Amino acid sequence: MSTPKILILGAGYGGLLTTLQLQKKLNYNEAEITLVNKHNYHYITTWLHEPAAGTAPADHARVGLDQIIDMNKINFVKDTVQSIQPEERTVTLESGDVLSYDYLVIGLGSDPETFGIEGLKEYAFSIRSINAVRQIREHIEYMFAKYKNEPHRTDYLTFVVGGAGFTGIEFSGELADRVPELCEEFDVDPSLVKIYNIEAAPTALPGFDPELVSYAVDVLTKKGVEFLIGTAIKQCTPDGVLLADGQEIKSKTVVWAAGVRGNSIVEKSGFEVMRGRVKVDEYLRAPGYDNVFVVGDCALIFNDEGRPYPPTAQIAVQEGEALGDNLAALIRGEVMMPFKPALQGSLASLGRGEGIGMVGSKKLFGTSAALMKKASDLRYLYKIGGVGLALKKVRL
Amino acid sequence: MSTPKILILGAGYGGLLTTLQLQKKLNYNEAEITLVNKHNYHYITTWLHEPAAGTAPADHARVGLDQIIDMNKINFVKDTVQSIQPEERTVTLESGDVLSYDYLVIGLGSDPETFGIEGLKEYAFSIRSINAVRQIREHIEYMFAKYKNEPHRTDYLTFVVGGAGFTGIEFSGELADRVPELCEEFDVDPSLVKIYNIEAAPTALPGFDPELVSYAVDVLTKKGVEFLIGTAIKQCTPDGVLLADGQEIKSKTVVWAAGVRGNSIVEKSGFEVMRGRVKVDEYLRAPGYDNVFVVGDCALIFNDEGRPYPPTAQIAVQEGEALGDNLAALIRGEVMMPFKPALQGSLASLGRGEGIGMVGSKKLFGTSAALMKKASDLRYLYKIGGVGLALKKVRL
Repeated sequence: MSTPKILILGAGYGGLLTTLQLQKKLNYNEAEITLVNKHNYHYITTWLHEPAAGTAPADHARVGLDQIIDMNKINFVKDTVQSIQPEERTVTLESGDVLSYDYLVIGLGSDPETFGIEGLKEYAFSIRSINAVRQIREHIEYMFAKYKNEPHRTDYLTFVVGGAGFTGIEFSGELADRVPELCEEFDVDPSLVKIYNIEAAPTALPGFDPELVSYAVDVLTKKGVEFLIGTAIKQCTPDGVLLADGQEIKSKTVVWAAGVRGNSIVEKSGFEVMRGRVKVDEYLRAPGYDNVFVVGDCALIFNDEGRPYPPTAQIAVQEGEALGDNLAALIRGEVMMPFKPALQGSLASLGRGEGIGMVGSKKLFGTSAALMKKASDLRYLYKIGGVGLALKKVRL
Repeated sequence: MSTPKILILGAGYGGLLTTLQLQKKLNYNEAEITLVNKHNYHYITTWLHEPAAGTAPADHARVGLDQIIDMNKINFVKDTVQSIQPEERTVTLESGDVLSYDYLVIGLGSDPETFGIEGLKEYAFSIRSINAVRQIREHIEYMFAKYKNEPHRTDYLTFVVGGAGFTGIEFSGELADRVPELCEEFDVDPSLVKIYNIEAAPTALPGFDPELVSYAVDVLTKKGVEFLIGTAIKQCTPDGVLLADGQEIKSKTVVWAAGVRGNSIVEKSGFEVMRGRVKVDEYLRAPGYDNVFVVGDCALIFNDEGRPYPPTAQIAVQEGEALGDNLAALIRGEVMMPFKPALQGSLASLGRGEGIGMVGSKKLFGTSAALMKKASDLRYLYKIGGVGLALKKVRL
């Protein structure tokens, strides 16, 4: 009997935690585990709004895979997945290499959900990777520098954030914190800088506790963010955005943060999807394939009321851990355990020292929310890289 | 008899030193002195290659005018000169204000000399002001960030410096020093980055000692600069440069550093110019006007062999000091002294800890040239702002 091959696609929250759990549970030679990832690092997606705004270095939001993975137990392949052939049990990479597997874990993350809005794909940025956020940061700085050489172009100083969900809110707060620094560096009058947060839903942070929402909106408004709530973006152009009410906002920087869909590779590979996500069973298996598992933003699971869980880091981490356990069980001929998310609450930062959150049924505001978020970040870092990583990364 | 009005246009080397010398020489109420400048700071043009490459902060290369000028003695007007009417003895500013004068000092600096090369004005950067160099720095960083999101676009990583005179050489060296930092920050393979220095003359640093030139070219070549000497740029396009030999270099960053001409306002105001510069007499007076003086890059003076002195900071400083003395003399009914530049040598930096120079008949190489340049910078800062400024600014 040959050693079973486990192939894990993507080192985001889901794929990484699956890998780490397998690394912990299995002995050498129980399985041949291969992790494929575009980069040789894992990035902490929930922190990306900071380097995007330039309030933290990009390096801060990533961890070298060699620091957390035991390369003696795991084969690491730095390559980009091009397609999956589930019938052949193979995966094709950009390099042309074809990998075969007995068990596949799809953790390929998300694409921005543009809801068919014209021009977004072409002209808007999105906070989706280390490479993307470095470009956003540099683009913002470049706009300040350009403005000083073309002082009639106030559109260079207008920033549009599309979406007032978690990412949109966190990025708006961070950008508002960065603006005074940029104004100082480039000799720009702060009153000329505009940050618009535009949300189509009738409220910011839809689905969140109204008292927390109103606190968040207050804090950000005081920092200089202008909210246009209940306002849909109709089109994004090279010159800004057109709103459904006919208004135009002239801006050279539109950051789209209004949601994600599953990575398009999954759909292209023939899996049945809803908004790019595969509706998995209680063992995170893709319909029709006993040996294909999906985690993170590519996986769709429903709560007891039949509503889909949102794609969050918290759930991806739980999925990865559960799947690692179940794959270890499978390989040893043991029984798999059904997975169910255990929501621990949610926390959003609102820039320096400010936040909101819900932990259990408790509402948190201001510094206590910000501190709680640090604690939760610390816990995640400890989970993936031990005390050393936690101490190295958390900024107090 | 009313107090004579001295109006000084520009706080570059020439205008600033005229102002400071008058401030030192004249008592309160001997003259009404007004200094007009676009910014409320003076910048050290010979340092601008550093913030342009990003090896030093832009702030480092400027000094607030309120730190060095006695605002009780000097009226400072932050405005941009639009035109001079020498017959009416007035100057019109961008704000619409019209200032009258008894004595005028034109120290309006330079415009880039593009030699009629098509596209340079539109598509090339030039190292000419704090605003310009901040844009160059941000543009360079942005190119690295963009490349990581469009990895087929190696033209983003190609940098063209037009001109191997002092500015072109100094900027090339500084940029070569910055590249490893940028590669580290943006995860870019350094072998993909190209810096071309293109010079139409048959040698780099035309007119400079051949041994020093060859040392400079060697140092920069080792740092990764590729020289194309005796190669004219025919055209600059949004995609790069076309060379006279038909070759095209694809690049999104062309920095033009091949010389300057006098500020176009001078010619537009009716003064007779050669390459924008007014041929002044031995008292730095414009032909036909006893009360109009020209200093710095707008002034053209000839050496004993009938060759024009190049527009340098060194000569501008000497002109400013001499003119300050002469204006004080004029106001007191004393005799003016004819001005003649006293060349003390020239020093060029070649990036960190490297340089070349000629002091008297002595050639300097490497660290001794770099140190000598620091000493000369120190002397200038001491001259304009005393010990305090010198200590604050010089980086050892």
